[in-house]
Formats: sequence, structure tokens, C-alpha cells
Amino acid sequence: MRIGIIGLGLMGGSLGIALKQNIDSCHIAGFDHNALHCAQALELGLVDTIAPSIEEISQCDVIFLSIPVDAIIATLQGFKNIHPHCTIIDLGSTKAKIVASTPAKIRQNLVAAHPMTGTEKFGPTAAVEALYKDKVVVLCDLEKSGAHQQEVALRLFRAIGMRCVFMEAHAHDRHAAYISHMPHALSFALANSVMRQEDAKSITALAGGGFRDMSRIAKSSPRMWEDIFRQNRSNLLIALKHLDEELQKCQKMVENEEWEELNGWMTDANKLHEIL
Amino acid sequence: MRIGIIGLGLMGGSLGIALKQNIDSCHIAGFDHNALHCAQALELGLVDTIAPSIEEISQCDVIFLSIPVDAIIATLQGFKNIHPHCTIIDLGSTKAKIVASTPAKIRQNLVAAHPMTGTEKFGPTAAVEALYKDKVVVLCDLEKSGAHQQEVALRLFRAIGMRCVFMEAHAHDRHAAYISHMPHALSFALANSVMRQEDAKSITALAGGGFRDMSRIAKSSPRMWEDIFRQNRSNLLIALKHLDEELQKCQKMVENEEWEELNGWMTDANKLHEIL
Repeated sequence: MRIGIIGLGLMGGSLGIALKQNIDSCHIAGFDHNALHCAQALELGLVDTIAPSIEEISQCDVIFLSIPVDAIIATLQGFKNIHPHCTIIDLGSTKAKIVASTPAKIRQNLVAAHPMTGTEKFGPTAAVEALYKDKVVVLCDLEKSGAHQQEVALRLFRAIGMRCVFMEAHAHDRHAAYISHMPHALSFALANSVMRQEDAKSITALAGGGFRDMSRIAKSSPRMWEDIFRQNRSNLLIALKHLDEELQKCQKMVENEEWEELNGWMTDANKLHEIL
Repeated sequence: MRIGIIGLGLMGGSLGIALKQNIDSCHIAGFDHNALHCAQALELGLVDTIAPSIEEISQCDVIFLSIPVDAIIATLQGFKNIHPHCTIIDLGSTKAKIVASTPAKIRQNLVAAHPMTGTEKFGPTAAVEALYKDKVVVLCDLEKSGAHQQEVALRLFRAIGMRCVFMEAHAHDRHAAYISHMPHALSFALANSVMRQEDAKSITALAGGGFRDMSRIAKSSPRMWEDIFRQNRSNLLIALKHLDEELQKCQKMVENEEWEELNGWMTDANKLHEIL
């Protein structure tokens, strides 16, 4: 099986390792606009070869798109001569705009997937062996993909240890706004507010596990997140509004010294224990 | 050396283990108003004995107070017949109100400390061996503690692997508001906003490392955090205001589709890389 990976950063690079370890006799060709990333991916053994062009990658049996979400849309529109049996799997963090803008003639080739994994690091050097293992991948509007493509995608994701969850693309984007995109905006806001008010020495001295965890994803790639925020703008704005309401509530209770209510509000938050 | 630990939860329990492992010939007596916690601490070997009363604990050479910050103030005020050589070390997350309300006759006995460590778990069963190792402990207004007490506290904290940092109590509370207390409020707000809008199934499916990390401390003890928010109310409100300003900025840039500015704002947040 010839597998092409377009985008050799954290997601694409880690996928290369996982596929090589779990799929028998597969050949993995990588492609990235960044020549340094290509050299690193080859050096680190994330892919078997670097393809000279998107055209060559587009002849693979399976093509993964692990690039920012705006680039996924552009790449899907640029594909030429895709074989009817080719499976194209995009790994974007937003789904509605991607499936809506996919050219009709390759819509059955596409499997729209969102693997719920990642770290704040990026580039091929950030790739890790177990990034996908035991994680969820959300497959969106899967009934719009061809039967062959559905089968290939499910087989590959399960082979690298993922649990498949199925969702409608718009529902995915609404949920992802709350559970992934808004928390990223929050982490960027937290990092900026603390760095504007506190010096590096105090931050280093006082940062416990709480701040470290909450600010970790503020180190994520601006280029990747600019695209995600743009594509999921309306859902993100609603999620930010709801978060803001809770923050205002907290602020008012502290302001008005409503300690019993505040305790109840924190006890509500503790219920997350029952879920995660 | 007889060491007393008042409060046998995560902090006190973990301290018991660390002291037993690192201090030669010490005897550790525990005390907790919760009888179950006393039984668990003894069973888990966190302490050597359970003291029948605060009076007995107050005869120890060193007394650690690992209880909520309001209870620290009440306990300090209730101490009777403290020996001039006794070292009392409070581990509260706020410092200004504690040092200000310590009775003058035991002020030299007190070392006001804030170990920058913890987890979202609580109770003796949450105690872990390495909680303090390689972490920072902030010692506040140390010049107000007696020379003997300063020496004892530094020796004990260093023996369990901590790095001592020195700070004025009010400065500590201002810094802690940004780097610890406000992020906790934020995590509670995030957990509540997501749980009010999303069902458990979607949260489980879509929660990646980002959301898990950011919501982890929303599981923290409401009793402990109610006290901290009360004692550091004014600093917390200012920190929440600054966080809110960053969030509003983000919201406006997304609303107005100012993507280049948003990218720059996220790039600013990335600078946290250089600090943590």
C-alpha cells in the first residue's frame, strides 16, 4: 500500500511512524513545502521517501492531509486525476467548511477525520511514536465517503490504535468549539495576561502544575490556530460568550463576597470528575 | 526531632512521607479533625502516630499547618504555650492575611511558606512521595521569623528536595493571584461552561490533551479554594480583570476577522516558551 502524507509536522510525522509500525508492507511518501521539514522527516525516519510534487503524492492509494485547515481546502481543490479508489483523509480540526468545499468529483474519495490528539509542539522533530494510540478519531459525514474509502480509513485508524467516533460535520464543529477551540483561545489569553503583568522570574518561581498545564497549549502554532479560528468563527464566538458568562459569574461572586454560592459553583465544576 | 502535621490531606500526607524518607530520626505526629483521614494517614504510613489534640501537637519541635488558609489563621490564634524554639510552618496559598493576623507572641515562631506544588486530588489517599521534590517553596517575610526558625525551615525544605525562593508577603499574594489563583478560577469557569453546554458523551469523545489539562484543576477542593479566593480577593479581582481584557481582545479580533492581529497575539503568547 502506497501512503502519502502531505504535511510533515507533529501530526503527519507521528502518523508516519505509527503507520510504519502497524501496517505491513506499506510505503510512505512525504511531502511538505518546507524543505527543512522534508530533510528532517527523512532523517528521523518518519517517512520512507520525499515525493517531489503533490502530483506524485496524488497517485498514492491513501493520502493523508496533515496541514492547516485552510491549506486542506486549497489542496483538495487543486488535486487532479485522483483515482476512484484513492482514499484522501484530512486530519483538520474543523470539518464543516472542509466537507462543504470539497469538489464533488472527489467527495467520495474524502474521509473527513479529526484525531483528538496533539501536543503544543510542532514540526517533524516534535513527532512521537504513540501520538495516536488509544486516542479518539472523529469521522464526520462518513456516509458521504465511498464504501471502499470508509473501509480503508477505519482499518488504518484502528490499526494505529485509535477509537473511531462518528459525527455530523456541523455538530463536530459546534462540539469542538467548546471542548477544543475555545480552551485554546483561553490559554492564549491566560499566557498573554500573565506575561503582560508578571516578570519571567516570578513566573518561573510561582508556576505550579496548574499554571503550567493551563498555559501549555498557549505555545501552539499561531498559523494552525488562525485557520481553525477563522473556519469555526461563529461557533467559537458562541463558546467564548458562554465562557465569559461563567467568568463574569465568578467575578461577581468574589466581588460581592458570595462565598457560599462560589463554593457551590466550584462544586458544580468538580462534577467533571464523573466525566473525565 | 518531633514533627507535627496538622491537616493530613494531599499536602500534609505527602509531606509526612517526604520527611520520613529524608530526615533522620524524626517522629511524625499527625492531627486532623476528620477521623477517617487520621485512620487513612496511619494506615498508609504517612505519619507515625495520630496526636489526640492540638495541644499535644503544639509541644512538637516543628509544626506544619497544611489546612485551608482560614483554618491556618484560626489555628495560629488558638495555639497556647508555644515553646520559644518551636518552629511553626504554614503551607497556605495566601500569605499576607496569615502573617498579619499571627499573634505577636508567636510571630517569631512562624515561617510563612507556600510550596508551589499540588494536584487536583485531595485527602490522605492522594498523598504522593515526590510531591515536593524539585519544586519551589516561597518563603515570605522570612526576616520576621526567628533565626532558629529560619534555619530549621530552610533545612527541612531543602532536605525534601525543594528550592527556596524569598518574597515579601504582599508581593507573593499579587504574583500568586496571576500565576495560580486566577488560573484556578478560569479552570472552574471552563469546566462549568463546557458542562452546561455539552453532554458527557461529547466531552469524552472530543476531550484531547488541551481540554484535559485546562480543566484538571477544576476538580480541586472547593473548601480550600473558597478560602484562598476570600483571602486574596482584591488581587484576584484585578487578575481576573486583566484576563478578561485579553479574552475580550481575542473575541473582538475573531468577531472583526482581524486575522493578522490575532496571529500576532497568539505569537505573543508563544513567548511563554522562553520562560517555561
